[in-house]
Amino acid sequence: MMTIANDYVREHIREVPDFPKKGILFLDITTATKDAKAMQYMLDFLYDQFKDEKVDYIAGIESRGFIFGAPLAYKLNAGFIPIRKPNKLPADTIKETYSLEYGTDTIEMHADALKEGDRVLVIDDLLATGGTAVAACNLVKKAGAEPIAAAFIIELDPLKGREKIEASGVKVVSMLNYDID
Amino acid sequence: MMTIANDYVREHIREVPDFPKKGILFLDITTATKDAKAMQYMLDFLYDQFKDEKVDYIAGIESRGFIFGAPLAYKLNAGFIPIRKPNKLPADTIKETYSLEYGTDTIEMHADALKEGDRVLVIDDLLATGGTAVAACNLVKKAGAEPIAAAFIIELDPLKGREKIEASGVKVVSMLNYDID
Repeated sequence: MMTIANDYVREHIREVPDFPKKGILFLDITTATKDAKAMQYMLDFLYDQFKDEKVDYIAGIESRGFIFGAPLAYKLNAGFIPIRKPNKLPADTIKETYSLEYGTDTIEMHADALKEGDRVLVIDDLLATGGTAVAACNLVKKAGAEPIAAAFIIELDPLKGREKIEASGVKVVSMLNYDID
Repeated sequence: MMTIANDYVREHIREVPDFPKKGILFLDITTATKDAKAMQYMLDFLYDQFKDEKVDYIAGIESRGFIFGAPLAYKLNAGFIPIRKPNKLPADTIKETYSLEYGTDTIEMHADALKEGDRVLVIDDLLATGGTAVAACNLVKKAGAEPIAAAFIIELDPLKGREKIEASGVKVVSMLNYDID
């Protein structure tokens, strides 16, 4: 999908070579969030995707997922739930561990954040391999709630995160597709 | 200031004993953000404080500051700038180191995030001793921009963070005052 909004946002995403390590081209979304118009376009895109659905909660993945998840929660009149790295949330949590290229990572959500039947959108800024997003959807399911979609601003097509998330039964939405890995 | 909105939000903030360590009473704002009405009240409070001022950018402090800063940026039609812990931002940064009870901490902002004359609001969820907020305001000043205020949902009065921030020449706004440290 090519629109004026999408092109505008894409032009405001900075490509930073060799971050976080040599050979990786990092897509820096902070140059888009600092542009007020790009910020409006990104949030309006997400809002338009879900404005006609019943959404109880937005689950934002630490920490750039908070930047898009919290405004979307506000706009949709939904609650906002942070999904965080270990030992950041103060009360009882449920955890999900997932594989990385080397080793594993774990994310947490408050055990009482969701209840059975809640309809939840999982939000992050960027979809790469999809490992974190699938783990986040699994946390939502563990709590008895329903992950109705996972939404992103950027999707790195060659890494096939979309396939992984869809294979777990969750719809995927993204604003900008990139042909890089 | 006592209002229906303030009381409602206060009732939705959970007190968690002994987090992050024994003897600390942690105010958990996630029980407020997950309540859609409390989320509206918190954001509307912040918006009302600044809607008649010219605000170019919201600088949100990682990571709970993102939850309030990003929606406020969207609502004020301002840009959003993340202030982060070290080595998280991909491009060139400016840094500010500040004292903690034991040792020091450092925060970073992209060196090109702000320019001279920009009017900036610094946002975090909670004002304790004010060390991080003053450091954030100093980053804004280092970039040649003007921190017009630092705003918070929760202020821990006995820790006197307000005095420290005001002594640096920056206005302080908070929604809820607590008499705990």
